Amino acid sequence: MAGSTYGSIFRITTWGESHGKALGVVIDGCPAGLELTEEDIQRYLDRRKPGASSIATPRKEEDRVEILSGVFEGRTTGTPISLMVRNTSQKSGDYSEIASFYRPGHADYTYDAKYGFRDYRGGGRSSGRETVGRVAAGAVACKVLERLGVTVYAYTRSIGPVEADMERFDREIGRRTLTAMPDERADEAALRYLEEARQDRDSVGGCMECLVEGLPPGIGEPVFDKLDANLAKAIMSIGAVKAVEIGDGCRVSARRGSENNDEFHGRDGVIVKASNHGGGILGGISDGDRLVVRAHVKPTPSIFRTQKTVNRGGEEIEINIRGRHDPVIVPRAVVVMECMTALTVLDAMLMNMSARMPDIETFYRFRE
Amino acid sequence: MAGSTYGSIFRITTWGESHGKALGVVIDGCPAGLELTEEDIQRYLDRRKPGASSIATPRKEEDRVEILSGVFEGRTTGTPISLMVRNTSQKSGDYSEIASFYRPGHADYTYDAKYGFRDYRGGGRSSGRETVGRVAAGAVACKVLERLGVTVYAYTRSIGPVEADMERFDREIGRRTLTAMPDERADEAALRYLEEARQDRDSVGGCMECLVEGLPPGIGEPVFDKLDANLAKAIMSIGAVKAVEIGDGCRVSARRGSENNDEFHGRDGVIVKASNHGGGILGGISDGDRLVVRAHVKPTPSIFRTQKTVNRGGEEIEINIRGRHDPVIVPRAVVVMECMTALTVLDAMLMNMSARMPDIETFYRFRE
Amino acid sequence: MAGSTYGSIFRITTWGESHGKALGVVIDGCPAGLELTEEDIQRYLDRRKPGASSIATPRKEEDRVEILSGVFEGRTTGTPISLMVRNTSQKSGDYSEIASFYRPGHADYTYDAKYGFRDYRGGGRSSGRETVGRVAAGAVACKVLERLGVTVYAYTRSIGPVEADMERFDREIGRRTLTAMPDERADEAALRYLEEARQDRDSVGGCMECLVEGLPPGIGEPVFDKLDANLAKAIMSIGAVKAVEIGDGCRVSARRGSENNDEFHGRDGVIVKASNHGGGILGGISDGDRLVVRAHVKPTPSIFRTQKTVNRGGEEIEINIRGRHDPVIVPRAVVVMECMTALTVLDAMLMNMSARMPDIETFYRFRE
Amino acid sequence: MAGSTYGSIFRITTWGESHGKALGVVIDGCPAGLELTEEDIQRYLDRRKPGASSIATPRKEEDRVEILSGVFEGRTTGTPISLMVRNTSQKSGDYSEIASFYRPGHADYTYDAKYGFRDYRGGGRSSGRETVGRVAAGAVACKVLERLGVTVYAYTRSIGPVEADMERFDREIGRRTLTAMPDERADEAALRYLEEARQDRDSVGGCMECLVEGLPPGIGEPVFDKLDANLAKAIMSIGAVKAVEIGDGCRVSARRGSENNDEFHGRDGVIVKASNHGGGILGGISDGDRLVVRAHVKPTPSIFRTQKTVNRGGEEIEINIRGRHDPVIVPRAVVVMECMTALTVLDAMLMNMSARMPDIETFYRFRE
Repeated sequence: MAGSTYGSIFRITTWGESHGKALGVVIDGCPAGLELTEEDIQRYLDRRKPGASSIATPRKEEDRVEILSGVFEGRTTGTPISLMVRNTSQKSGDYSEIASFYRPGHADYTYDAKYGFRDYRGGGRSSGRETVGRVAAGAVACKVLERLGVTVYAYTRSIGPVEADMERFDREIGRRTLTAMPDERADEAALRYLEEARQDRDSVGGCMECLVEGLPPGIGEPVFDKLDANLAKAIMSIGAVKAVEIGDGCRVSARRGSENNDEFHGRDGVIVKASNHGGGILGGISDGDRLVVRAHVKPTPSIFRTQKTVNRGGEEIEINIRGRHDPVIVPRAVVVMECMTALTVLDAMLMNMSARMPDIETFYRFRE
Repeated sequence: MAGSTYGSIFRITTWGESHGKALGVVIDGCPAGLELTEEDIQRYLDRRKPGASSIATPRKEEDRVEILSGVFEGRTTGTPISLMVRNTSQKSGDYSEIASFYRPGHADYTYDAKYGFRDYRGGGRSSGRETVGRVAAGAVACKVLERLGVTVYAYTRSIGPVEADMERFDREIGRRTLTAMPDERADEAALRYLEEARQDRDSVGGCMECLVEGLPPGIGEPVFDKLDANLAKAIMSIGAVKAVEIGDGCRVSARRGSENNDEFHGRDGVIVKASNHGGGILGGISDGDRLVVRAHVKPTPSIFRTQKTVNRGGEEIEINIRGRHDPVIVPRAVVVMECMTALTVLDAMLMNMSARMPDIETFYRFRE
Repeated sequence: MAGSTYGSIFRITTWGESHGKALGVVIDGCPAGLELTEEDIQRYLDRRKPGASSIATPRKEEDRVEILSGVFEGRTTGTPISLMVRNTSQKSGDYSEIASFYRPGHADYTYDAKYGFRDYRGGGRSSGRETVGRVAAGAVACKVLERLGVTVYAYTRSIGPVEADMERFDREIGRRTLTAMPDERADEAALRYLEEARQDRDSVGGCMECLVEGLPPGIGEPVFDKLDANLAKAIMSIGAVKAVEIGDGCRVSARRGSENNDEFHGRDGVIVKASNHGGGILGGISDGDRLVVRAHVKPTPSIFRTQKTVNRGGEEIEINIRGRHDPVIVPRAVVVMECMTALTVLDAMLMNMSARMPDIETFYRFRE
Repeated sequence: MAGSTYGSIFRITTWGESHGKALGVVIDGCPAGLELTEEDIQRYLDRRKPGASSIATPRKEEDRVEILSGVFEGRTTGTPISLMVRNTSQKSGDYSEIASFYRPGHADYTYDAKYGFRDYRGGGRSSGRETVGRVAAGAVACKVLERLGVTVYAYTRSIGPVEADMERFDREIGRRTLTAMPDERADEAALRYLEEARQDRDSVGGCMECLVEGLPPGIGEPVFDKLDANLAKAIMSIGAVKAVEIGDGCRVSARRGSENNDEFHGRDGVIVKASNHGGGILGGISDGDRLVVRAHVKPTPSIFRTQKTVNRGGEEIEINIRGRHDPVIVPRAVVVMECMTALTVLDAMLMNMSARMPDIETFYRFRE
């Protein structure tokens, strides 16, 4: 209710601030019997680390995860999995000057308005570091999904005006470029654009996309907990995201029905669609096609130009933000999008297990 | 969990199918002491009625609401408010032929995949009539918000390629045009465009926008229940919505930080912003500025052209959809957007009441 | 949150007041494909009707249930099942005098303290009529449980000092005696005791017990949502219940461990217990044995003697309660206990479906 | 849902096993601005430590709490408070023999039945050590309640046949006796009784009671989330509790209404009751009187006699439990009862803040 819990059956609760002692997550509702190691989770956390000095903050973030509970003899026990990452390199001194004023584009003012005061060190709970818990939990969700034949893949679609050429889309490339673009030429162009912005002491926005494959039809609940509604919430909850699209998204509003409807076909006894404008969801429920979700991310609000703002007393002042800040958020947010998508899809799949009257054999499948 | 409940403190549960006996909603958590009449609710339901034969289905939908519980001597009692609308004009015979096949762009296939069978009459629970419950509950939320000085206003921003000219924006006009556009010229152009589409036996998409004014700063919870995240879910859960934007939305991804940051200013001792690219939300929490939410709605999937699809056995067939269907969804969805926004904002406001340590006088404000 | 919703997966929301237009319940999360008729539900509602003039209120309560949604062609569709019972015989005039004062043992004062005013007609939402929704929903839960081989049976264990002789326990008898006692001699003695109390213008308390059979081991969640914890909540939430016991209940506090431990035995390859002091639950999770839950119910607070109390202004007055009131609550509460138990057990069973890592074949058992 | 989360607004999620790396809790929804130190929490944790060698296990449990997040400059920030206690003295070797069989009265069998395997070290998640998280969170709840003028006090009412003499009731004494009995003579008698049981290689049960004072009338939600229903759940969820009573509890079932009704009186303009059979709750809502909750706790299931049981294969065997086990659970459970009661009452108080239509001044009490 107070905002740090997500999911119904596979439910996570994250905690921690940018400059606190640690950050972490508790997963309650992970099915028992999943093989799980710290390494499984570390791989995801490593993907949200700063990639390279030119586009990401050079802060050294070790972010070593520790499994504190819920795993025994290498397998999940069905009870809460507590995951923690100690903050090691944050120095409170770096940020203390922001205590007294409100940075444009940041949550400083709104946290003060809500709570009466705030942990101003590095943005506190509103910092991007909050996503450590999401990614640690998402790594577990991804592993469960894998076992059920479902894969989740996110990548950078555009940075500023530079867009990936989908003709050249290559998953492996998306995993290793600094921008997380799945197209090497676009990656290079984007890096040049970022370098320009940096020299302008400015930052840039971007767009990321997530694809889910292997999802059977029938996943998602009607009305309020539609799969697309829950995805929209999950993705919009990532800091700096300002728009979420499903399938063709915004483009549908200028279309005719005859263009936009996806015809059904039969192929080898399976029902498929001739196109996928809908992004794999009909009436809020998966249709067996590839899920397509897109998010638009604002430019990093911390820029190195003099900006006008007010202090806590409402007096107008000029400020210069110091410190280390990524000039673009998207490349490191890609793994967060992947994780939030995985958490949403897995929760919907588990929820769906009771959608139909279970026959007694299925219900008691575990009894010998 | 199964999808028909929305909200945490002001919590609603909707029920009913297009051609069932009735549709309704139960509101649990409405504060006691609000004056409430059936007429308060009826006014909102009337706005989702078909407006005029040329753009909306000519089905006669009376949709008279009945308050069954939770109101005594004209005021809410704090206990569940049950609201019901009897279905009067639906004839099951109209739709029975769709039982055997899957209409493109509809949820027929996905409901069958989920539940093993479906109520095929008029789309059952996946019909737009499902929004009757949302609107009835939203009307109550709007009334509570009004008392707290908050207003919610939605309107049609575009229909197909025809966009409202925001220079000519007039709220009153938006309430009385057939298209719900707040600009009479655009309304006329959109009606012509709709007439064209109708003659082509086609349908069209559109875009709607919702504005919230009077909302204090500090509303919304951090991390997962950010105000924008919850709004994204609420709005994406409206059937046919395929994208949700907050503030400048998709446009932020091509911007520089220096363009996108909203400067803070002090005005008469109050902190305000020089611009509102962020749409009134920073870090998931309201900043005191106007909330701006936008939704892109796909064209009505029911079109009067021959379409290819499959039947339940997966065999490819051609179908012709009969019946009465709006050529555009947006004008009737505007009130639904308004209601979902109101429900989300009110719930966040009530949740915020416990954000700070209550002083004992405030906590016991009711004791004499 | 505001109290009228129960359950996680099989979730119900009840509504309605004693003298409002109607009472009802919305069930969200009932699996699709269950055969369900109004008659299935009516049978349970009939059991909460006044049984006979000598022990139960002679008010004519027809309580005909109407299925408003969620059932199509005789089967549940997986979407919300809305059930309604119109109030037909309640006359507001009967109760209006209680508007100004607080009846001892009733919720008049506490509702006023909470909400600032109350629906005083027949107790409003705090009336025993509120259980109409619970019983209607419980009837559906019982039907699902039946399909899974689980039966739930409640009965009156004692009325005042008269206790059923468990040597003579007979389920069929418990279903047809006026007291719901499963022992005819005790039933007769209890009826005599009740007649005495009636002549004294007094009321009496009693004890009821519920047994669940056929429940497999492994049902219930650890820590807070233990099966016994959820049962305690469910049963304590029934008006007038003041104590809940599991298995040997209160008696365990005076025992030694060597007396109280239930030994495990192996019988035909199945693990069973030599005794059942624990009432079928170990560590909050079912152990495959019979569940035993007991509830102690206070005497009907409405008695026909002059009582001292205060009016809304806090002035001391004397009152005489009029109207028709059962001299004992238990016999009509037995079906409510059965229903609350069924709702709790079913919800735990559905929740348990995702306790273990599903193998892919089980997960996709529905796909052809 | 999976059982490790409790509360709606003040919501806690506990994690950790008896012999894992650590145990802890995340509190989400604690109001901002509460002064909080580790010492505030440590005092409560110290109360659940083994008190003295004669009645409690001599294991050395340091249980030092660490605040990992949510507190800044000595005050709660409104964001999640993560609390952790490292396990220091547990040795896995102590318990490994129980991996293969099912101890009577323990959850070994039911965890295996639920999850397919279990963390058998010291009972894993089903161990009494699980309450570390509850107590840490409860300490915070108690501090919030204190600020609102509400106190919570639990004590041992009886151990085996030895009952505290309530004429001699003294709170201070209850805080310092080894048995947590508020009467020194009973404490001595109970210690003698425990010594006897120990020499018999046996264990004993007991009864504990919790009192809440200063709670205003109007707290608790109607129907399912009645204050007594939520208390019943909270207390029954404590391992080994088999019965929960409110006020006069079980005794009401043998009473007449004329004995059981609590008359209202006016005293200095305040409405009070002449007696408190109801335990401070009417219709599920507090009536301003003292809350009285009682719990019956079974004897420690670990006894040092040879017991019959089965192994995982269902074969009958004889076992001798080794290790260190308290001969009675109650004295260390008293603080757990206090904490669960505090968590329940505080959550109900915060929930109640939105029960009435807020006037605009109250709603905006924080805005200057």
